[in-house]
This record gives sequence, structure tokens and C-alpha cells, in this order.
Amino acid sequence: MISDMLFYHFGYGRHAPARTGKRLRPQMVVRTALSNGGDIEACLDAAAAIEILHNYSLVHDDIEDRDELRHGRQTLWSKYGIGPAIDAGDAMCALSFLTLAQSDRHNGSRRVLAMVRALQHAHRVMCDGQALDLEFELATSVTLPQYEQMIAGKTAALFEAACVLGAHCAQLDDEMVAQYASAGRAYGMAFQIRDDLLGIWGSQQQTGKVAANDLARRKWTYPVVWAISQSDSSARSAIVSAYAAGVPLDTQTVATVVDALEDLGAREAATRAVAEPMALIEGLPDRALRDFLLDTLAAPVG
Amino acid sequence: MISDMLFYHFGYGRHAPARTGKRLRPQMVVRTALSNGGDIEACLDAAAAIEILHNYSLVHDDIEDRDELRHGRQTLWSKYGIGPAIDAGDAMCALSFLTLAQSDRHNGSRRVLAMVRALQHAHRVMCDGQALDLEFELATSVTLPQYEQMIAGKTAALFEAACVLGAHCAQLDDEMVAQYASAGRAYGMAFQIRDDLLGIWGSQQQTGKVAANDLARRKWTYPVVWAISQSDSSARSAIVSAYAAGVPLDTQTVATVVDALEDLGAREAATRAVAEPMALIEGLPDRALRDFLLDTLAAPVG
Repeated sequence: MISDMLFYHFGYGRHAPARTGKRLRPQMVVRTALSNGGDIEACLDAAAAIEILHNYSLVHDDIEDRDELRHGRQTLWSKYGIGPAIDAGDAMCALSFLTLAQSDRHNGSRRVLAMVRALQHAHRVMCDGQALDLEFELATSVTLPQYEQMIAGKTAALFEAACVLGAHCAQLDDEMVAQYASAGRAYGMAFQIRDDLLGIWGSQQQTGKVAANDLARRKWTYPVVWAISQSDSSARSAIVSAYAAGVPLDTQTVATVVDALEDLGAREAATRAVAEPMALIEGLPDRALRDFLLDTLAAPVG
Repeated sequence: MISDMLFYHFGYGRHAPARTGKRLRPQMVVRTALSNGGDIEACLDAAAAIEILHNYSLVHDDIEDRDELRHGRQTLWSKYGIGPAIDAGDAMCALSFLTLAQSDRHNGSRRVLAMVRALQHAHRVMCDGQALDLEFELATSVTLPQYEQMIAGKTAALFEAACVLGAHCAQLDDEMVAQYASAGRAYGMAFQIRDDLLGIWGSQQQTGKVAANDLARRKWTYPVVWAISQSDSSARSAIVSAYAAGVPLDTQTVATVVDALEDLGAREAATRAVAEPMALIEGLPDRALRDFLLDTLAAPVG
């Protein structure tokens, strides 16, 4: 029963074709480890663990956000029911850590325990971020610090953990692990703000979603939060009143909000916010990882 | 937000009075460790971890089973909503393992990693048990092996883990850890079957619930599953047809089913099934733990 649900979620077996994706988080584990002299065998458990934990969070978030579709397929809960989907998500969480815990044969108990701690820390912070996101649904206003706290939890924490796990697999010292943690977190913040940009100005080809879908759903994304943090203007008022209604935005209102965001310069502000954390990534010693991270953030939006 | 929900669940702070209970699982950790020469400091993290993980499973199970009350108080989801309660449960899961992972200062990395593995194994098996339990809701018949598999997951796995964690905290060797695992699992099976007996014949004082509540809710408990595994009779047919309707049982039907169970000897059969695993517990070398476990199973039902 649970295994069938996991096969459905990942698109395996009779539920083929497999879900595709960039697998950014496991890539970060492996690339961080390899570029620091780590062995591929030593980091595959950690890479799998982080991808499973990410998918566990998607399964539960889809229930909590009442999302019925993900990349054009029914979400797990909308196909199997809320109860079974909570349970299958919980099983994925257990599988993630069972996978990680078996990597002591390559990395030694002390390193693996440090990895368990880092990944559970990310797990806890992700829950905090999701709690904030759920609170935002009812909010009539969200500040930039609140928004940053939310994405630090929902998105950046797991990218941070990916870099930390990769660094541990390469047996790096504490100082280097901390440097990778900072770079991973910075990458995660930039990644989410870029995702926010795509959610408004991205083409359907880039996102697999209808353009401006995040506005229709009244999501508190960086451009919106930045715009309402600016001094009063008619453009700002248009956004505030559209979001204050507390219901999905109709096509006409979405168009008005997009115009208001453009007028205020919210698109440029978000683009600058993506570029800012890049400085931390540029400080990384290994060129291959650095270029990979910067490339994934650099493709133009639209 | 999450912290307020956890305070509510446990009855702390402004949500006092604190939820009381026997705290059997952490008691098993501590008693197993102490009776084998372990140190109290060395086992408190593990004891806390297992109690938090148990409560995480209660929070999610209450959502999945749509239970609105627990010991006379609103369950977390019925007070805060399903989404926030899923998220708060997830946070409890993370907190459980963060607590366990910090005990390396007493027990060393290798032991703690073995404990993480044992507790995550229990976590995974608990999800399997819960999945079976959810399937049982729609079942018109459940066999004894299916029932045993379900309670092995939902109940026995965590008691097994409690004994294993306690044994690790006392630095026992693999053979002794395995012996405690068997005893904990046996205790858990007996504990659940006794709980099933209480759910039908227990006084309200013993259970805090209305007598025969498990029958009204059409739960597949040991006495019911045993009864329908017997050869055909009018008493057996009465139970089968009451459960086949697929709706909550009214007071009259509950009384009929109780009579049928008594007629068939289901109460005695369940009492024997509680006594059976006790042999394994009686084989434990340390008398204090053995007596504690047997005492908690020995109080008369009714």
C-alpha cells in the first residue's frame, strides 16, 4: 500500500513515466563531495536521503496547501486520500534517514551522526518555514524579514543541508563545512527568489505552470512583498487591495498587479536579490561547483 | 506557532494542566538501561526522544482517523486545523531525533547511530502498521495474521525500540540487545491485545472512554478478529453482519456483539493471547524490569 503510493509519487513501475526534475539537491551533495576529493560511493546515500526528504516535504505541503496537481499529475493526497498520504509522507521521512544512517560503512559513525543532525536540523527549520507559509495564507500584509524567514526555512535549509552533507562526505573540517553551509543557504535564498520571479514572469515552458499563477493564488512572493514594503503610491495600493480581498485573483486583477509590480520596479528588485547571495557562492574555492550553482541561477526569466 | 501547538498537545504553559499518562515507553528505556548498569544521564535523551516520537504518531494518527477528542480534550488538528497539525507533527518527529542525536556526549557516536537506526526502523514499521489500520476501516473481514501485522507495526515496534535504546544506553552487546528487542516486541503485542480487551470490557475508569467504544466504532480488535476466525455459528454470524454494514454500530448492535463475543469465548482467547508473550518477558535476566513489565499487564480487566 505505502510502496504503491511511493511508486506513484515518483512515477515508477506501473505508475511510469518517472517524475523528472533537475535533482538539484542531490546534485549539490555529490558535486560538493567530489569537488573536494570525496568518493562517489561515499556520498550516494546522503544524496538519496536528501532527495527523499525533499519529496516527503512536497507530499505533506501539497496536503497542507490543498494543491491537487503537481506538474500536471494528481498529487498523492488527491489520488489516495489525506490520511494515507500523510502516512506515506511519514514513511518517506523514515526512509530518508534510514538511507543516510547506512552510510557509516563509508563515512564512519561520527560523520554520519553529524549528517543526521544537520539533516534533522533542516527538517525542523523546514517545518517552521511551512508554518509561517500557512500563516501567510490568512495575512493581509507580509514584511520582507517575515518573507525571508519563511523561505530560509522552506527552501534554503535543505540546500544548506545538501552542501553540509557533501562536505562531510569529503571529510572536510568544521570551518570548511561552515563555509559550505553558508554557500548552500545563500544559494537556496537566491533559488527561491528566482522561483518567485518565474512564478510571475516565467514562460509556461520554464515553469510548467500558467504564467502569473502565483499571483492568481495570492502567494506572498518576493516581488509582491518588496512592492508593498515601498512608500505609498497608486501602484502599491493596487497590489495591497488586490491581496487584501483574501480570495483567488481573477485574470483582470492579476494583470493589474503585474503592471503595478513592473511600475514599482519589483522585477528589478527581485533580480538584484537573486544576484546578491551569489557573492557568497563566488567565494567557494572549487570552480566546478561554483559554476554549476551560478549557471542554475543565471538563465534569463521570461 | 508550532511551539504553541506543541504546548497545547502536551498541556504545558497556558495550556496547562499537563497531559498525564503512564509514560510506559520512556520508562522502558530508563528501566532497561538502569537495570543493566547504565547511567541515568546517559538514557534521558533517548527516553525523551521515544516519548516525543510516540506523541508525533498520535498527532498524525488522530488526523488520519478523524478523531476529534483524546482523553476529553480536542485533538491538535480539530483545534488548529489539519494543515498546521500535520506540520506540528512533522516538527515533533524532527525534535525527537534531534534529542536522540545529542546523546553522543554520553553514549558515543557508534551507539547513538545504532539508536537512530533502531528508532527510524520503528518509525517506518509504524507507518506500515498505520497503513494497514487505515485499510482495515474499509475491510469486511480481517484475519489474525493481518491483525498481528498491524499491531506489530502500530504498537509493538515502538516498545521494541524502547528496550533497544535502553540496552544501547547500557552498552550491552548485540546478543543482549537482540534479547531486549524480542522482549519489548512481545510486551508491545501483549499490551495492545490487553488494550483491545479494555476497549470492550474495561471500565470507563480504566480507559477514560465509554465502554465498548471500540465496537461502536467498528474497530478490528483482537477479540473480534479472533471470533470471526472461528468456525461458523450464529454468534459468529451476528458479529460478521454487524461489522459488514460499514457504519458505526448503534447501542443495540454493540450489546448483541458483546454477547456474541462472550458466547464464543473471545474474551478468554484474548486473555490467553496477552499471557502468551509473557514467557519471553519472564526470560529477562533482570528482575526489576521483568516485574515492572508483568505488573503493567496483570491488572484485571473490568
